[in-house]
Amino acid sequence: MPELRQNRATKEWIIIARGRAKRPQEFKSRKKKQKIPKLDPDCPFCPGNEEKTPSEVFSLKERGSKKWQVRVIPNKYPALMPEGQLSPQTRGFFLKTRGIGYHEVIVHTPWHNQTLGNLPLSQVEKVCLTYRQRYLDLQKDRRIKLIIIFENHGESAGTSLVHPHSQLVALPLVPASIRHPLEEAMRYYDDHGSCVFCDMVKEELGFKRRVVARTKDFIAFHPFASRTPFETWIVPMKHSAGFGSITKKDCKEMARILKVMLERLDKRLSDPDYNLLIRTAPLKDSEEDYYHWHIQILPRLTTPAGFELGSGIFINTIFPEETAALLASRKVRKGKRHKQY
Amino acid sequence: MPELRQNRATKEWIIIARGRAKRPQEFKSRKKKQKIPKLDPDCPFCPGNEEKTPSEVFSLKERGSKKWQVRVIPNKYPALMPEGQLSPQTRGFFLKTRGIGYHEVIVHTPWHNQTLGNLPLSQVEKVCLTYRQRYLDLQKDRRIKLIIIFENHGESAGTSLVHPHSQLVALPLVPASIRHPLEEAMRYYDDHGSCVFCDMVKEELGFKRRVVARTKDFIAFHPFASRTPFETWIVPMKHSAGFGSITKKDCKEMARILKVMLERLDKRLSDPDYNLLIRTAPLKDSEEDYYHWHIQILPRLTTPAGFELGSGIFINTIFPEETAALLASRKVRKGKRHKQY
Repeated sequence: MPELRQNRATKEWIIIARGRAKRPQEFKSRKKKQKIPKLDPDCPFCPGNEEKTPSEVFSLKERGSKKWQVRVIPNKYPALMPEGQLSPQTRGFFLKTRGIGYHEVIVHTPWHNQTLGNLPLSQVEKVCLTYRQRYLDLQKDRRIKLIIIFENHGESAGTSLVHPHSQLVALPLVPASIRHPLEEAMRYYDDHGSCVFCDMVKEELGFKRRVVARTKDFIAFHPFASRTPFETWIVPMKHSAGFGSITKKDCKEMARILKVMLERLDKRLSDPDYNLLIRTAPLKDSEEDYYHWHIQILPRLTTPAGFELGSGIFINTIFPEETAALLASRKVRKGKRHKQY
Repeated sequence: MPELRQNRATKEWIIIARGRAKRPQEFKSRKKKQKIPKLDPDCPFCPGNEEKTPSEVFSLKERGSKKWQVRVIPNKYPALMPEGQLSPQTRGFFLKTRGIGYHEVIVHTPWHNQTLGNLPLSQVEKVCLTYRQRYLDLQKDRRIKLIIIFENHGESAGTSLVHPHSQLVALPLVPASIRHPLEEAMRYYDDHGSCVFCDMVKEELGFKRRVVARTKDFIAFHPFASRTPFETWIVPMKHSAGFGSITKKDCKEMARILKVMLERLDKRLSDPDYNLLIRTAPLKDSEEDYYHWHIQILPRLTTPAGFELGSGIFINTIFPEETAALLASRKVRKGKRHKQY
C-alpha cells in the first residue's frame, strides 16, 4: 500500500510507492566513467584560463602564493545583474521588474577532475568558507532580499560544465514559493512555541533510524518525507534562521559532515548526479525563531514529471528508513570513530 | 538586462535572461527520429495485449464493434490505490496517511506510433471526452479531494512507454502547493472583484502579441511569465473553476485547439518532449468565482536545477512575445481560416 507522508516543516506531501521500487543497488548511476583530465585547456574554470571568465570578485589563495585555490566570478550568462536600480512596474496587469541581483560561480578547486566530495577536507572547508564570505559580502547590498547557494552536479542535475563549481544567486525579492513554507513554519511556531526544524532534529535523534551522520554541531538525516531516494538534510544543531550567522569554526564542521555525506553517496550510488542547496531565511528574517537554515542534497535518480508539476507531490520509491540504513555509519571519518554518534 | 516577471494568477516569478539565449530554431528537439512500428507486440498498451494490464475501468469503442479506441486502466505501478479507508495518523510529530486514491492510465489510441497532436481530430475529441468521463466518475468518491490529469510526452518529460497515453491521479488531499496559489487567486478576487484568469484572458486579448490561437470558447497564449520557452496555456473563455463543468460540446472544441497547439509545437520544435497538465480547482472549490481551470503545456527544453529547486523561480531564455510570434497563425485548421481569430 503506498503511503502519503508530510514534511512538517515545509507542509509538502510526498508519496512512497514501493510497487515501482528498484532495489537499492539499482539506484546506482549508470553513467559511463569518463577519463577526465586533471586540467583541461578548454575549460574556462581551469587555471591559466582566467581571462576567459569575467573578472574575479573573490578568491582564496595559498599562503605566500599567487595561485588561487577557490575562485568566485560573476556568471558569464547571468540570470541577474548588479547594475541599476530596482524598478517595479505596477502599472497595468502585468508585473515586471529589472533583473537586479547577483549571479556568481564559485569554482571549488583548480583541479578539473575532482568532485566536492572527493576534495581533501581542507579544500571543502575553503569552499564552505567562501560560501560564508560571499553571503556576508552580498547581504550588505540593501537591494538584496534572499541569497541562494547551490551546486548542480552532473548533466541530469542541470550542469553543462564538468569543472567542480557551485553557484550563488542573490535575489531582489522573496518568491512566493519561499514565503509560503516560511509562513507554515511561523504557524508551527505559533502553535508549539518552538522551531519546527529544531523539533524535527529532536525527533530524528530520538527515532535514530533515519540519522546517517552526526558531528558535535550538525546532524545529517534522510527526512521522513524524502522527495527522492537518498534525499539528505544536513541541519545545524544550534538554532539559526539565516546562513549568515555561521562562524568560521562552524564552516569547518559543516565541511566535514558534507564531505562524509557526499563521499558515501558517491560510493553507494557510483557518483550520482545531484542538486545541493543551502536553504536559508530571507535576509530580513535571519534572526527569526521559526526558521532554521540547512543543507539539502537531492540525488537526481528520478525525473519529476507531470504529476510533480501538477501537484507538487514527489513520488519516492524507497523508504528513507531503508536508504538511511545503507548510508549510516558510526564512523564519520574513515578509520576514526566519532564520539557523538 | 534580465527581466523578472510575475504571473499574477500564481504569484510565481520567472526570470527572462536572453544572454543565455538560443535562437528560436535552436530549441528544436535533437532526439533521433526512430522508426516506431504501428503496433508493438511487446507494448502493454497495444491491442491484443490487454491481459498484460490491470482490468480496464472504461473504454470508448467503435459503434457496433468490440474494438476499443480509447482505454482506461489502473496504473500497474500505482502511486495511490482505491482500496481502504483514509487513516490520518496525527499522533506524534510525523504525519502520514495511507495512499488512498486512484492512479489511472488513459491510452489515447490503439496505434503505437502516434502522438496526441498527430491523431485525427475525432480521436483527440475521444481522449478529451474520456478525461471528462473519468473526472466525473471519480469525483463521486467522497474521499477524493483533487483530480490531476496529465500527459508526459517523451523521455525527458518522464515517460518510459512510447505508446501515447495520459495519466490521472485522484488525491485524497489538497497539497499546500495547490492551496497556496488558490489563496493568491482568492486574494486577487477580494481585491478586484474578478477572477484573475478571466482578467488575464482579457489582457492577453487586448495585448494580442502573446495569443497563439483562438476558437469560439478557448484561447491559447504564451503567458507573460512563461516558465519555459514555448510554455502554452489553453484557457476556456467562460469562467469555471473545476474541470468537471466541461460539457461534451466544450470537449470537442478543447480537442480542436489542443490539437492545433500540439501540431504547431511538433512542427516548429521537431516533436519536443513536454508535460501537459489540466489545472483545476479542488473538488470542493469547483464552483468558486476565483479559480479557473485551464491546460498548461510545458515543453521540456531546459533542465530545472538547483536554482529552480531553491527559489521556485524558473529561468527562461526567450520572451513569450517571440515564441508566440513563431507559433501564432490566423489559421486554426490547415487550409481553413477560422473566423474568430
